[in-house]
Amino acid sequence: MALEASDRNTDTAPPAEGVRLPNGMTKLPNGIILDKDGKPCRACNTKSAFSAFAAQATHKQSKTTAATTAAATQGATAATSTKPAVECPPDVAQLGRSSWTLLHSIAAQYPETPSSAQQSDLASFVRLFSRLYPCWVCADDFQAYVARDTPRVASRDDFGQWLCRAHNDVNVKLGKPVFDCARWEERWRTGPPDGSCD
Amino acid sequence: MALEASDRNTDTAPPAEGVRLPNGMTKLPNGIILDKDGKPCRACNTKSAFSAFAAQATHKQSKTTAATTAAATQGATAATSTKPAVECPPDVAQLGRSSWTLLHSIAAQYPETPSSAQQSDLASFVRLFSRLYPCWVCADDFQAYVARDTPRVASRDDFGQWLCRAHNDVNVKLGKPVFDCARWEERWRTGPPDGSCD
Repeated sequence: MALEASDRNTDTAPPAEGVRLPNGMTKLPNGIILDKDGKPCRACNTKSAFSAFAAQATHKQSKTTAATTAAATQGATAATSTKPAVECPPDVAQLGRSSWTLLHSIAAQYPETPSSAQQSDLASFVRLFSRLYPCWVCADDFQAYVARDTPRVASRDDFGQWLCRAHNDVNVKLGKPVFDCARWEERWRTGPPDGSCD
Repeated sequence: MALEASDRNTDTAPPAEGVRLPNGMTKLPNGIILDKDGKPCRACNTKSAFSAFAAQATHKQSKTTAATTAAATQGATAATSTKPAVECPPDVAQLGRSSWTLLHSIAAQYPETPSSAQQSDLASFVRLFSRLYPCWVCADDFQAYVARDTPRVASRDDFGQWLCRAHNDVNVKLGKPVFDCARWEERWRTGPPDGSCD
């Protein structure tokens, strides 16, 4: 499972089977992950990887050069700094953080003793989430994870622990610290016992 | 629809039917929204509202007084500032931002001409999302919105426009600016035409 693209987004990542490359390109620079229509996938790459791709594959290089020249001109820097911030489509990292926040919060609010209907709802939600997740390589990984470790939905703690393990699976792939799943509820539901989140 | 709690989280908000109040309390201070078990709901309130509640209903007040006294003592400020940041359960605003990011990104990656199965998946996902959303008052609002304006899942643009309208419904409730839905794809999929997100 990888709600953030992990080891696929490397210099050596091959194009996924069936993916068309953009016109005139025979390989993916910096391992950029493409949408299934052959265009670079914002939701599958970090912002920096996407920008590097754009600089190579489009006119970005010349725009950057022009901007650098302009910045050397008196007044240009001030004009640039007052430009309002543009809200951009999320990259793979922002999408991952957002999605983990939602999923762990769903676990936190899930009943301790859910009804059969609630268990069915949550199992279906996780399955549909794995199909609809906007980063398609991450979705593939998540579907594979779900296939080898069926989501536990019998209780709040069952699901919270399952989700924590799934998140840690991604943490390992990304070289991030593993979270102590004994503390999942403290992190996502109650806050620490010292009240520092109250 | 309100993925962030809106007009319910006011001084005059009544307790939802069937909600038990904490021991000894006859009304909700500052309109704090409770979980259905009668405890304050982190996912339903802003962090500031939750903290105000905690200060009133627990020993937070005395802790705050002690902290203020300590801060006046030489060295205490430095000690506080070096304390590692605690990651807290998300409040209603963070949960809302995260969830909109996921939902709009799902719209952005949804096919232009989805299959019947894909349409069914997305419709089911939205319905389940409305049941499982961790802020229960927001979930109630979302379910009501979905009931009066059925999610459009026939195409990427249909769903993107529907979701944009749903988000604007919340923006109005929260007193936030309404977004121009003609630009939903630019905001969530392509970035602006000037390439400032590339």
